[in-house]
Amino acid sequence: MSNTAYRIEKDFLGEKQIPKDAYYGVQTTRAIENFPITGYRIHPELIKSLGIVKKAAALANMEVGMLKKEIGQHIIQACDEVIAGKWNDQFIVDPIQGGAGTSINMNANEVIANRALEIMGEEKGNYKIISPNSHINMSQSTNDAFPTATHIAILSLMNQLLESIKTMHQAFVSKSKEFGHIIKMGRTHLQDAVPILLGQEFEAYSRVVSRDIDRISLSRQHLYEVNMGATAVGTGLNADPTYIQAVVRNLSELSGLPLKGAEHLVDATQNTDCYTEVSANLKVCMINMSKIANDLRLMASGPRDGLFEIVLPARQPGSSIMPGKVNPVMAEVVNQVAFQVMGNDLTISAASEAGQFELNVMEPVLFFNLIQSISIMSNVFEVFTNKCLVDIKANEEHLREYVEKSVGIITAVNPHIGYELAAQIAKEAIATGASVRELCLKSGALTAEQLDIILDPFEMTHPGIAGGRELVK
Amino acid sequence: MSNTAYRIEKDFLGEKQIPKDAYYGVQTTRAIENFPITGYRIHPELIKSLGIVKKAAALANMEVGMLKKEIGQHIIQACDEVIAGKWNDQFIVDPIQGGAGTSINMNANEVIANRALEIMGEEKGNYKIISPNSHINMSQSTNDAFPTATHIAILSLMNQLLESIKTMHQAFVSKSKEFGHIIKMGRTHLQDAVPILLGQEFEAYSRVVSRDIDRISLSRQHLYEVNMGATAVGTGLNADPTYIQAVVRNLSELSGLPLKGAEHLVDATQNTDCYTEVSANLKVCMINMSKIANDLRLMASGPRDGLFEIVLPARQPGSSIMPGKVNPVMAEVVNQVAFQVMGNDLTISAASEAGQFELNVMEPVLFFNLIQSISIMSNVFEVFTNKCLVDIKANEEHLREYVEKSVGIITAVNPHIGYELAAQIAKEAIATGASVRELCLKSGALTAEQLDIILDPFEMTHPGIAGGRELVK
Amino acid sequence: MSNTAYRIEKDFLGEKQIPKDAYYGVQTTRAIENFPITGYRIHPELIKSLGIVKKAAALANMEVGMLKKEIGQHIIQACDEVIAGKWNDQFIVDPIQGGAGTSINMNANEVIANRALEIMGEEKGNYKIISPNSHINMSQSTNDAFPTATHIAILSLMNQLLESIKTMHQAFVSKSKEFGHIIKMGRTHLQDAVPILLGQEFEAYSRVVSRDIDRISLSRQHLYEVNMGATAVGTGLNADPTYIQAVVRNLSELSGLPLKGAEHLVDATQNTDCYTEVSANLKVCMINMSKIANDLRLMASGPRDGLFEIVLPARQPGSSIMPGKVNPVMAEVVNQVAFQVMGNDLTISAASEAGQFELNVMEPVLFFNLIQSISIMSNVFEVFTNKCLVDIKANEEHLREYVEKSVGIITAVNPHIGYELAAQIAKEAIATGASVRELCLKSGALTAEQLDIILDPFEMTHPGIAGGRELVK
Amino acid sequence: MSNTAYRIEKDFLGEKQIPKDAYYGVQTTRAIENFPITGYRIHPELIKSLGIVKKAAALANMEVGMLKKEIGQHIIQACDEVIAGKWNDQFIVDPIQGGAGTSINMNANEVIANRALEIMGEEKGNYKIISPNSHINMSQSTNDAFPTATHIAILSLMNQLLESIKTMHQAFVSKSKEFGHIIKMGRTHLQDAVPILLGQEFEAYSRVVSRDIDRISLSRQHLYEVNMGATAVGTGLNADPTYIQAVVRNLSELSGLPLKGAEHLVDATQNTDCYTEVSANLKVCMINMSKIANDLRLMASGPRDGLFEIVLPARQPGSSIMPGKVNPVMAEVVNQVAFQVMGNDLTISAASEAGQFELNVMEPVLFFNLIQSISIMSNVFEVFTNKCLVDIKANEEHLREYVEKSVGIITAVNPHIGYELAAQIAKEAIATGASVRELCLKSGALTAEQLDIILDPFEMTHPGIAGGRELVK
Repeated sequence: MSNTAYRIEKDFLGEKQIPKDAYYGVQTTRAIENFPITGYRIHPELIKSLGIVKKAAALANMEVGMLKKEIGQHIIQACDEVIAGKWNDQFIVDPIQGGAGTSINMNANEVIANRALEIMGEEKGNYKIISPNSHINMSQSTNDAFPTATHIAILSLMNQLLESIKTMHQAFVSKSKEFGHIIKMGRTHLQDAVPILLGQEFEAYSRVVSRDIDRISLSRQHLYEVNMGATAVGTGLNADPTYIQAVVRNLSELSGLPLKGAEHLVDATQNTDCYTEVSANLKVCMINMSKIANDLRLMASGPRDGLFEIVLPARQPGSSIMPGKVNPVMAEVVNQVAFQVMGNDLTISAASEAGQFELNVMEPVLFFNLIQSISIMSNVFEVFTNKCLVDIKANEEHLREYVEKSVGIITAVNPHIGYELAAQIAKEAIATGASVRELCLKSGALTAEQLDIILDPFEMTHPGIAGGRELVK
Repeated sequence: MSNTAYRIEKDFLGEKQIPKDAYYGVQTTRAIENFPITGYRIHPELIKSLGIVKKAAALANMEVGMLKKEIGQHIIQACDEVIAGKWNDQFIVDPIQGGAGTSINMNANEVIANRALEIMGEEKGNYKIISPNSHINMSQSTNDAFPTATHIAILSLMNQLLESIKTMHQAFVSKSKEFGHIIKMGRTHLQDAVPILLGQEFEAYSRVVSRDIDRISLSRQHLYEVNMGATAVGTGLNADPTYIQAVVRNLSELSGLPLKGAEHLVDATQNTDCYTEVSANLKVCMINMSKIANDLRLMASGPRDGLFEIVLPARQPGSSIMPGKVNPVMAEVVNQVAFQVMGNDLTISAASEAGQFELNVMEPVLFFNLIQSISIMSNVFEVFTNKCLVDIKANEEHLREYVEKSVGIITAVNPHIGYELAAQIAKEAIATGASVRELCLKSGALTAEQLDIILDPFEMTHPGIAGGRELVK
Repeated sequence: MSNTAYRIEKDFLGEKQIPKDAYYGVQTTRAIENFPITGYRIHPELIKSLGIVKKAAALANMEVGMLKKEIGQHIIQACDEVIAGKWNDQFIVDPIQGGAGTSINMNANEVIANRALEIMGEEKGNYKIISPNSHINMSQSTNDAFPTATHIAILSLMNQLLESIKTMHQAFVSKSKEFGHIIKMGRTHLQDAVPILLGQEFEAYSRVVSRDIDRISLSRQHLYEVNMGATAVGTGLNADPTYIQAVVRNLSELSGLPLKGAEHLVDATQNTDCYTEVSANLKVCMINMSKIANDLRLMASGPRDGLFEIVLPARQPGSSIMPGKVNPVMAEVVNQVAFQVMGNDLTISAASEAGQFELNVMEPVLFFNLIQSISIMSNVFEVFTNKCLVDIKANEEHLREYVEKSVGIITAVNPHIGYELAAQIAKEAIATGASVRELCLKSGALTAEQLDIILDPFEMTHPGIAGGRELVK
Repeated sequence: MSNTAYRIEKDFLGEKQIPKDAYYGVQTTRAIENFPITGYRIHPELIKSLGIVKKAAALANMEVGMLKKEIGQHIIQACDEVIAGKWNDQFIVDPIQGGAGTSINMNANEVIANRALEIMGEEKGNYKIISPNSHINMSQSTNDAFPTATHIAILSLMNQLLESIKTMHQAFVSKSKEFGHIIKMGRTHLQDAVPILLGQEFEAYSRVVSRDIDRISLSRQHLYEVNMGATAVGTGLNADPTYIQAVVRNLSELSGLPLKGAEHLVDATQNTDCYTEVSANLKVCMINMSKIANDLRLMASGPRDGLFEIVLPARQPGSSIMPGKVNPVMAEVVNQVAFQVMGNDLTISAASEAGQFELNVMEPVLFFNLIQSISIMSNVFEVFTNKCLVDIKANEEHLREYVEKSVGIITAVNPHIGYELAAQIAKEAIATGASVRELCLKSGALTAEQLDIILDPFEMTHPGIAGGRELVK
């Protein structure tokens, strides 16, 4: 390769060769040498948000007269292209990196500076005209620009997630209605308990998901506050107060999000509780979803040798060796996302705990995991809903048989004959295989007519003394 | 010991010898044989709450005519004694136990039944007159009585915790005012950054704690809903609707808490998100507190060979070998409680994820950890506040010296001479030990008068271009 | 109370009133004021080990002439009493405490000093004659004495744990033999797969437990190295080399454990990997045990409406409301201990990560959790084995029926007719309820005689082409 | 696009359009529709290992006569191309997927089948000639082929990791020698303790890393056992015993790893402890590394306002706003990888715990995290060693000054004047700023000559009574 294929850039640590057609520059180059960790790229939503932040800052700097229009206009254009995703391939730094995001921020600064230079007809790297630090990063620090961009990216992704989860919630509600009349045996400890409606179970699922929607929605509360204007340590050094107001207003307009400036910028710069709060609520949600996925997999167990209470739609052959096998793959992937989100929450927690003084320098790994959690939850809920939940069928007859042969229905006779006698009858029923009805009758404690009323399983699915209080002696 | 020291009790699995003076009975005895796990007892607040639950149920059962007054009145008296803590030594089951709390619930049922029998002048164990299952547990299941009692215990402990944390918050606010005028060097990456006020740092602490108060307060929301009346699987089988209304009303009155009946009892019985939600917020709080404790320990490092920016009060000799050593023990114990609460949160999460169908049978370990987290947080905040926080002193002079000799203040000249030139000056300052002021002057870019204005550290502690925008070329 | 009920003790921070009959002293008193965190006491095994450490040090100090015999002999006697558990009630510090264990160590130093003074006929608190620091703690620091004691306590508890787990392993081996002839349906994804022997499943359990025995045994490796003689930071300041040799030899003799001095005392004092290593292996074990407990609970599900493949022994009535219900409580408590150990492992990890420079000051919470994990595992394995595992029964007939009606056995025809055709047959079998044998026959691909050979389920439980390779076309 | 751009493939669930030039087929297509979760691809090392597994199986099947040479030879060639990485772009399934890896396995089966067909001159999709299931997957199940491939991939990556960590270990050893003569102040609780050599600290780092090498090396032990031949549930159904022997021999030869067949295939198929064991040891290692990174960052704090004991090499400008700032980025990225690995370990643990009966269907998320942990550790150790560790410089003079002005050296006088008097002197020294030497002299307890000997800091860095036992009164 001839030397014309490179340009030389330098910073206060020295010079670096940069591929001539690259929009990134010297600091990005150092970053990729320093941090070849995961091999992943940063999330496109975060690139977009960086474009928004840089545009909002350029506009605000122009507004307050810090940035000349003849420079600023080209920066704006370059930012617009970044926002449109045109330069995603130039964002090459690894999401896990030392330096609290300086490399990501400088990657953005360099790409925008070089693209703006190019638009002006200048050579890339001619930072005397447009400098990544002095112009693109004007009035900013990594410590405000990077978290602010991340807030915007996370909020956008969370809005997608909330769409996903709301659709899933509706599907649970629909199923609870569809299954509202189907009697089945309730189980505690995986042991036969007392009758319940399949619809009640799906309603319970829908309700916990509904609380998750509320929790996740609410957990956005502190993300709406951005620390733009905080600069290095939150004191706002080098950020004009008029600029701060302007930049936040611009951010809201450009992102379409109801952002506001953090009330206390030192606090907003060093504390990361707004992220751990979101992650904690994501984790709570996935724990609930994992329980639901487990229930579905248990109910769908079979087809011949399991509970076989419900049928999940077949989405792919289940085995490379066992012909005809179909597995509950869409529920299993929910479990797996749950485990991932639990692990990510620990990473996020540990990273958050490691903050020191004015900054948490572990933000890159924290943000990487938080963005991943939101994103995979959003993805999994969509496929789980569409490819599994909406098509679940109940094996109604089989479910009713379970109720008919169960012993647990004896619970309903408690108020009438006492727990102790009932326990003796239950024990005999299990040992002999006899029916509860038959043994109750034999005991002489209740008549056939009384038992007809008391042992009606549908009556057991709502509060009340079976047969009414008047029947109780 | 002669055989008269025992009485015989039986259940449907057979007979057991019970110490004659014991108020607990056969099922408690089985439980202590089955679960000798931690060696701990259940928390006194939970015992008290079980008393409240059993009293509320007895009253409600009397109200609806299920429980006769001549029996019920003695049960009420026994419950009152349990509430008063008189029989704490009779609650002997291990907090970690199989069976979803049936052993804890039966321990309560047996103690109350036997004490009520005793009050009546009957023999302990004479369950034909008062039965733990049929009378004390009337209209209830472990699956509603135990979680309801736990809600009450947790809410009471959380109220104590909130007192504790609010007092701590006030102490942070006071310190932020006390230290409001003290200039110090801000640090990012543990490297010198730019000036900040010590008061701003303590204000940042106070603000994150304030958000934790809000989060923890709010996380009580779903605990106020109790599933009393749900009985076995949430359908309310054997619980008269009038009883359900009455028992919840009684619970509120007896506990002084604004409890209400859960809207959907099946949901409330099987889902444990109300607990994971609390635990998640406790964890978020302790992550913040651990960061604060770390900051304090770093600032207090020394006395001769550390940062020595603040002095924590001496609370105990710090070493059994190093004379005169004093350690930041009150901050260290905050870190340790943080690690414990993080671990507990994982246990709680794993337990919650393990719920199946109509019940989460892992509730005992879940509740044990949640009660412990709340309780140790409450305890540690109280001693940390009183024995450390309120007596922190600042080494004001030393802090000012740090600012004076720092290089980071050069950041303020950026808007005036550009980041690139400033970087060269900074590099030279670090290498040669020369002062930033001197080198800026030597560079000819700024006059002495300008530098007086621009390099004033107090001016750097709030937003603005040092020296004003008009100074910028 | 008259003032004669107290004595006055002082340290360099001032004076404290101490109950006159207390053996602990001023520093213990400060500790209980500073750290009222969990309300628990330290584990008796750790108290015993502290006695051993102090005795070993006193003997070694006498040996090298640092400690006079007329003092030393009384110290030895006091240590012997501590080892015997006589003064456990005097060890009152909370297991979670700031100060890296100085309070625990001083609690031991004070109790031994005061008891030795008493034996000599001196007043308690007369530390000019016998000083907690200068005599009992002679040649030691908390930083070597406390971890050394903990190593001994942990090793003793681990030996008990290994007994417990080995007995459990034997029980799994016995069950695998007992169930060696019982055919059942294997399941993957909770879906019917292909036949397996129940004995093979129990053998798989026994084998993973066997690896856990190896892992846990091996994880003791670095605990055998104690840092006694390290004193404050591992350099051994104030510890005579001859003393160091002697004290380690004494520790081995007194504890009966093959202890040796750490090769590099600075390393051994600051690094806590020997503990995280143990905890990690405990966690691995409990993850395995939780999976086994889950399998057992699934297999035992029923009795009428579950898999009902095995029966676990009834250990207690399972419900306070559902008569006759029996739950798999002994398996459930294994799950719960698993969750606790997982959480403890996180606490231990976080505490370990928080070490700084020459010491990890988070050792108290680390040790508390590690001792708890070992202890509850030991306890739960013992009851799980004796009260559950050894009495598990197989529902042999029911298991065979599952095989007979399954579709999964069609896998055996793959090599003969190809996966694709087999899949069509399987699909039809599931849809129509027809038997695999019947449909294979109808397809004309295999004869009745061939199918007799190929579809023999017992033949499917070991490697091989059913019917032999020669049958394959 | 015209319809000629697609081919039609079908499985027992129906037909799918496949891009005509794609080597993957119908089941891969279903998988990408079902699992658009992370957007990542599976690791190239795992693709390579799948090629090895399929080649080893084909060779073994040919050996035992199950697979005809005229088919087998083309399969072998296709496998060789996969091993060479030629078809990496055809492995498009998401690493997080339901179905226990069936989709990954079928992706491999389909790519190899279609490429083999192509080599033969047949149309892609003509599975009557070469079938993904019947030929490429012959004698295999996902449940043995996928874990076996993963074992190989993990072992290869672990070998790279071990190279990385051994190089790092050597660098720590070199540094410990380089710094062997440099005295500094030891710190416990971040408070001044007693003198130590900087080389002793780096030796402590080298030693814990050395144990990590041993632990990680050893943790490969159970990975060498592969379950190839287990087929569906570990019983080996459809796998000829001669084939099993042959395939394992082939795997060893092709991978260059000392693989052996698992002794008990049912055990090896359902238990995942071989992975949790590795992950646990990776976590232990990263906890140690995080502590080391923290120490380095603390020692490097400054340059003017921190400890400034060492200097880490500058690798990139540290701030986009603060000129000249340099941050310890290479240490910070070690911390971040530590947090990631801790989180991954939790995901792996939770996934492992979720195994049921004959299989752990959560293997995809488990393997994804384990491969990531190994890979990012390997990467970060390499850059940390080369770009940071080897170039660390000590501020020798500054370190000596810390020792000279410290109070902690008073510890050495303990054996001579007692802890209590020493404590009074220390307290006075701290309060007044006077030197320890001066105050000891003033106390009259020791002479100037004695103090010269006793207070020599270098003497304090190894075991012994400063000045010798003879000096002790």
